[in-house]
Amino acid sequence: MDANVFLESVRTKRPLVHHLTNWVTILDCAQIVKSLGASPVMAHAAEEVAEMTGLASALVLNIGTLTGDFVESMLTAAQAANSRDIPVVLDVCGAGATAFRDRMCRKLIDEARIDVIKGNASEIARIAGLDVRTRGVDAAHVATDLRELAADLARKKSCTVVITGPVDIVADAGMTLAVHNGHAMMAEVVGTGCMAASVIGAFVGASPQDIASAAAAALSCYGIAGEIAARKSSGPMAFKHNLMDGMHALNAQDIAAMQRVEP
Amino acid sequence: MDANVFLESVRTKRPLVHHLTNWVTILDCAQIVKSLGASPVMAHAAEEVAEMTGLASALVLNIGTLTGDFVESMLTAAQAANSRDIPVVLDVCGAGATAFRDRMCRKLIDEARIDVIKGNASEIARIAGLDVRTRGVDAAHVATDLRELAADLARKKSCTVVITGPVDIVADAGMTLAVHNGHAMMAEVVGTGCMAASVIGAFVGASPQDIASAAAAALSCYGIAGEIAARKSSGPMAFKHNLMDGMHALNAQDIAAMQRVEP
Amino acid sequence: MDANVFLESVRTKRPLVHHLTNWVTILDCAQIVKSLGASPVMAHAAEEVAEMTGLASALVLNIGTLTGDFVESMLTAAQAANSRDIPVVLDVCGAGATAFRDRMCRKLIDEARIDVIKGNASEIARIAGLDVRTRGVDAAHVATDLRELAADLARKKSCTVVITGPVDIVADAGMTLAVHNGHAMMAEVVGTGCMAASVIGAFVGASPQDIASAAAAALSCYGIAGEIAARKSSGPMAFKHNLMDGMHALNAQDIAAMQRVEP
Repeated sequence: MDANVFLESVRTKRPLVHHLTNWVTILDCAQIVKSLGASPVMAHAAEEVAEMTGLASALVLNIGTLTGDFVESMLTAAQAANSRDIPVVLDVCGAGATAFRDRMCRKLIDEARIDVIKGNASEIARIAGLDVRTRGVDAAHVATDLRELAADLARKKSCTVVITGPVDIVADAGMTLAVHNGHAMMAEVVGTGCMAASVIGAFVGASPQDIASAAAAALSCYGIAGEIAARKSSGPMAFKHNLMDGMHALNAQDIAAMQRVEP
Repeated sequence: MDANVFLESVRTKRPLVHHLTNWVTILDCAQIVKSLGASPVMAHAAEEVAEMTGLASALVLNIGTLTGDFVESMLTAAQAANSRDIPVVLDVCGAGATAFRDRMCRKLIDEARIDVIKGNASEIARIAGLDVRTRGVDAAHVATDLRELAADLARKKSCTVVITGPVDIVADAGMTLAVHNGHAMMAEVVGTGCMAASVIGAFVGASPQDIASAAAAALSCYGIAGEIAARKSSGPMAFKHNLMDGMHALNAQDIAAMQRVEP
Repeated sequence: MDANVFLESVRTKRPLVHHLTNWVTILDCAQIVKSLGASPVMAHAAEEVAEMTGLASALVLNIGTLTGDFVESMLTAAQAANSRDIPVVLDVCGAGATAFRDRMCRKLIDEARIDVIKGNASEIARIAGLDVRTRGVDAAHVATDLRELAADLARKKSCTVVITGPVDIVADAGMTLAVHNGHAMMAEVVGTGCMAASVIGAFVGASPQDIASAAAAALSCYGIAGEIAARKSSGPMAFKHNLMDGMHALNAQDIAAMQRVEP
């Protein structure tokens, strides 16, 4: 898998990535998509959400600041995406923190086809039915093999599962990949998890025939930009901005030298 | 027209600019107003929106993440502004992307007096009734003379029309101006369009007797700050921050040397 | 009072700080908490808000972009916090600008126990019943002794009162402290007031037995980071990012040399 091929596909096709996401990191999600050369749009009104999804190449859902109404709009958008074979990425942000989040995630996963379920270890463990408590939106320790966790859930839900963390895991029914790119500073910045979902959205929007590989390529490129950013950043905000601009500047040479995706 | 005269008016009068805007770029809109030396306020609850508008010198509306309720609050605010002769700027963000957006724009324009209608080429074309499809919130190609488009709509609606793009067009019933300031990097940053509407809001709030010239001055200053920022910015985020700080630092010498506003 | 002791307590305990805050500065509030080494979470749905508060060490409420429903969720969260002795910080953002804001502040203060009421001079004056008009969310002049104002309100409401400004005042029933740290550039940046409430939230979450001192320590650390940031910042955005990264980097030596908290 050559992550640069997938990145070039994003830059050439400039997919429109429709988001229904949280109010905390919404601007970062939009900008990271734009910085990739793709086009973000955020819209959630019941009256237009299906029509907007119909214009898009990918749909990214993130339950960070969910309400009941907002999840209804997410479901409408996801079903519109399903009917047109537009890939749907669901960031199960904060799953395991409250019963309501768990219930809303279940609703989305049961009533629409989700192509990529993405979360940190404790969020995905919770989606898989384990008795894990997420502390707000930060990962809690999970005493399970993460590759197995991802692969099992992927098989059960017939989708791609992404677990982000020090090593990112990407699994679908047929394969599991481990992405070793990234940097510890990513965990000190609010929004890096949400942006990861948006980057995945742009990559699968440009390469919908190859979702798991596109997701792994997305995380590898994002992680490489993080590694480069960390070299020159003195604090979390400087790091975030360098990471975002690093996605804009990322080139084939850096990717060839730094990509670390393993089966 | 000397843009610096209008900028000094903003800095001296420090107008309060009330926004009902989208959740994506709301912080950028607030900060750019603050960086100009003016004062932003964001409030949308039905119970207070008219009272808050009554304190303000300008009202900026942006439908980026609209809902039906939110547009009702916008209308209430716009009518409160009308009754006190407070100028109203409407950013028709995403017009042409969905039927709902078109309908809500029509509602606002028909049921309140909008002083400045602002959008990119395909958004304004759509407001003018052309059969153009906006791709999310990014401009689509419009096969029409933009000066004519702006001037026609301005006459029809008795307002000022602003079309942003590589060259910004500002038209009212009596004149049309072309603002040649700006930089291509502005199109790579989420929020530059929204911030342009906020800058216009601050300028027309300080100079309500001269709306079209104030809008052109706003876009010229903003574009000059963009040109200066581009010289020292290596990526979109660095550019955005330099643009915003550039508005704070903008001085009469730079404006005199760089202003490019033509009839 | 040694502010560093309180800061170290935040870094060691890493409190989860639950926010119901405004949509303008929500990301800055989350990041400043994260940059302190603590953990932010933002959630407001009626169905989960009490459960999320139950996981937290502090609750921060900010009425910046309030609606009626949102205040209901704030009240539910505050009452859940009260029942578990989790400290509650209320930023009365924009109190005095509209009757609705005043009414909603009164509701929160009357129907829940608020541990820290925080605002600028005109906001707090309004909460104390003075006939002051806030201009949007920026402080208006208050012709009253601010120490007395804070101390009186603190006694009346049996809580800690914080008035932010060129000198921050912190008062509870037993003492009044004046924090002389900070920098004038803080007033040129949107979100510094909101972030101050979040920083106070993190500090009182880590030291709930000593709320007034923790709040003064929070403001001293935040002000020191602002003073350091100002030395190297050429504009408001650069300053904000340096301030935020400065909170991440703040060390005992800087605090010992620069802390200026006086009775």
